[in-house]
Amino acid sequence: MATDISEQPAAYGRLVAPAAAARIAEVAAVVAARRPRYVMLTARGTSDHAALYGGYLSEIRLGLPAGLGSPSTVTLFGARADYSQALVIGVSQSGESPDLCELVQAARASGATTVAITNEPDSPLATIAELVIHLDAGHERALPATKTYTTELLALLMLIEGVRAGDGRLPAEEAAFLATLPELAAEVLAGDEPERVASRLRFVDNLVVTGRAYGYPTAREAAHKIMETSYVPTLAYSGADLLHGPLAVTAPRVPVLAVVGAGPGGAAMREVVAKLSTRDTEVTVVSPTEVAGTHGRFPVPAVDERYSPLLDILPLQRLTLALAVNRGNDPDAPLGITKVTPTR
Amino acid sequence: MATDISEQPAAYGRLVAPAAAARIAEVAAVVAARRPRYVMLTARGTSDHAALYGGYLSEIRLGLPAGLGSPSTVTLFGARADYSQALVIGVSQSGESPDLCELVQAARASGATTVAITNEPDSPLATIAELVIHLDAGHERALPATKTYTTELLALLMLIEGVRAGDGRLPAEEAAFLATLPELAAEVLAGDEPERVASRLRFVDNLVVTGRAYGYPTAREAAHKIMETSYVPTLAYSGADLLHGPLAVTAPRVPVLAVVGAGPGGAAMREVVAKLSTRDTEVTVVSPTEVAGTHGRFPVPAVDERYSPLLDILPLQRLTLALAVNRGNDPDAPLGITKVTPTR
Repeated sequence: MATDISEQPAAYGRLVAPAAAARIAEVAAVVAARRPRYVMLTARGTSDHAALYGGYLSEIRLGLPAGLGSPSTVTLFGARADYSQALVIGVSQSGESPDLCELVQAARASGATTVAITNEPDSPLATIAELVIHLDAGHERALPATKTYTTELLALLMLIEGVRAGDGRLPAEEAAFLATLPELAAEVLAGDEPERVASRLRFVDNLVVTGRAYGYPTAREAAHKIMETSYVPTLAYSGADLLHGPLAVTAPRVPVLAVVGAGPGGAAMREVVAKLSTRDTEVTVVSPTEVAGTHGRFPVPAVDERYSPLLDILPLQRLTLALAVNRGNDPDAPLGITKVTPTR
Repeated sequence: MATDISEQPAAYGRLVAPAAAARIAEVAAVVAARRPRYVMLTARGTSDHAALYGGYLSEIRLGLPAGLGSPSTVTLFGARADYSQALVIGVSQSGESPDLCELVQAARASGATTVAITNEPDSPLATIAELVIHLDAGHERALPATKTYTTELLALLMLIEGVRAGDGRLPAEEAAFLATLPELAAEVLAGDEPERVASRLRFVDNLVVTGRAYGYPTAREAAHKIMETSYVPTLAYSGADLLHGPLAVTAPRVPVLAVVGAGPGGAAMREVVAKLSTRDTEVTVVSPTEVAGTHGRFPVPAVDERYSPLLDILPLQRLTLALAVNRGNDPDAPLGITKVTPTR
């Protein structure tokens, strides 16, 4: 898992390099020409959090309503919705989940523009979808997904920004930022905070992770990863939903990890953190700047919040790994999970 | 909270009575005539789980793709998506959440057909939406929502089945079933299993609640309610997602509540329960029939799974109440929550 994590800057570099960027631009140009009216993303497990990011990007950057499709309506109830005006994106590192394949197939049959985002370009999902983006993340050694998750995020960003541009090609400003991404990711991964925080959390019974808008997929993915590898029941909440009730579970014994970006999502999260700190909750933030009332911080660069999921998850992956090792678990092969989970 | 819970059969009765049913049919007829291409639901907290149910109904019963809208894209990032072909449904007992209002207003301005489902017909949300369904659930005494949640479910069912019929009016078979709903709900509420299970769960540190398709909103709502009132960190998973990783948190010390219906969702859940029972997990089911390898059961009638959320949540509400009382908490006024949470 440590090796997979360390390979993420290089994996980012491969995807933003001219050859891969040009292939994604071709896909984006086809999608843009179809003028979809809305976006439906579908995924399972870790990839579901990448899909969530794709949904925020679609709504904010494309002005297209976006939702996450539930394969069970198709696989269990035989629903045959009309997706003829939709862009349907299936996200899966393995490209093998039968329920995703069935949903994408049904959507394509009803006239949707379908895209598979996968690390396995010969997989069933890649065969079923009209268009394919290959993550080129290389072989992932550990069962918990890290570099396939972050390359899914980057592929979605490049696809959607390409669709926004119209001709599929990234605007100069976007391309210039992405060229710096491998270096920024390497800098974030060089920090030593994750091991220190993991040591402090060694005996924790529960955790809460929270973020808003672009920060919410990061919260969901971090919670998922901690549960997969350390078996600590961990709740993920949008900062807004946390205020709608479950705040009461964040007693002093339940520490909170909060994703606090440099933009509007982060500003809204500062209010949530302020409310948590009045409850004596120990809060550790992923943030480019200090946040009042918090106990610790994973520093990340101050980037536009649409880029922040590409960087914010990195210290949380390392926290996950260190926590599992601290607690005597094997992060590479956690109990109860397999690389491909064939759900229907 | 006990009084609110006990009033649900009567609240169902008011909504299915001719006068209210005719008003919902009028709304459904308008929606059907607009021929929306997809459905976007938006809600916060408890109502989010009703919205999730509305999404499954839309996809399965109407063949319309459905998604849950995230208000933060509008309120924090100013996204202005084109919803001109959408049916947009805002679900909120108070009708006051500013972020929901802003999203529904933006959707209506872009040409969507907008419906407010609320217990407060003079609320801002009801004023902003073009069409309104009044839950008529009466005053809810306790802070945790119970009867407003179940009437939201019923209103969504009646709306969507009315749209399916085309003229807004429920088909005879549907109306005949709904006429029996108050009595079925009263029978489910008469059981004494919730108190016995609550006693056994008195000292639990964590819980997992799981269901699939129509059973998933029930799982989410039960988990939310337990956390609100008993402060027990409780994870909610779709049965499929539970197999994609987090199964490892369900050690013998983490009991599972599973929603196992009489149809395809329940059949899929039986596989999940079987896998859990090989891990020595203590599973209690909400199910019309016995499920192998489980420890306890909340019996419910064997109904078509699209009706099951209206009944399955009832014993789980009573479990929530009994658990809070057992643990010495005040279920009517839990820490950290207010009836109206003004998030943006």
